[in-house]
Amino acid sequence: MRRRNMDLRLVVGANIRALREARGVPQDELAHVAEIHPTYLSGIENGKRNISLRVLERLAAALVVSEAELVRRKNQ
Amino acid sequence: MRRRNMDLRLVVGANIRALREARGVPQDELAHVAEIHPTYLSGIENGKRNISLRVLERLAAALVVSEAELVRRKNQ
Repeated sequence: MRRRNMDLRLVVGANIRALREARGVPQDELAHVAEIHPTYLSGIENGKRNISLRVLERLAAALVVSEAELVRRKNQ
Repeated sequence: MRRRNMDLRLVVGANIRALREARGVPQDELAHVAEIHPTYLSGIENGKRNISLRVLERLAAALVVSEAELVRRKNQ
């Protein structure tokens, strides 16, 4: 049953960084809008944080994308 | 910036329940495959648990769907 996939934390971190940079938004500004600490956001973008649905929801709202877009894997 | 949306925990819970029931899989079996406690799964399906990416990943693998499918909102 278990597919060998890239760790979802790395997928989400890369997606957030790509969307943030595409919008030219600095990390501290996104962190402020999403109401999380800038160092926590840095950890998220580096795939080191096991964030919850509520943090995922706030980041998606701050980037004005769906949560599905933040968790989407390259091949999907 | 903040869209008034249904709480993501409710969205994910409903998606998991719908997929599980469509596959005729009992809650305790899905809980076993996803390596979580059955009562925790019940809380997740009722939108009461703020699960992490790793639990989301295990549930998606157990249901053989993408994580994006579990967090997808009705209008997306």
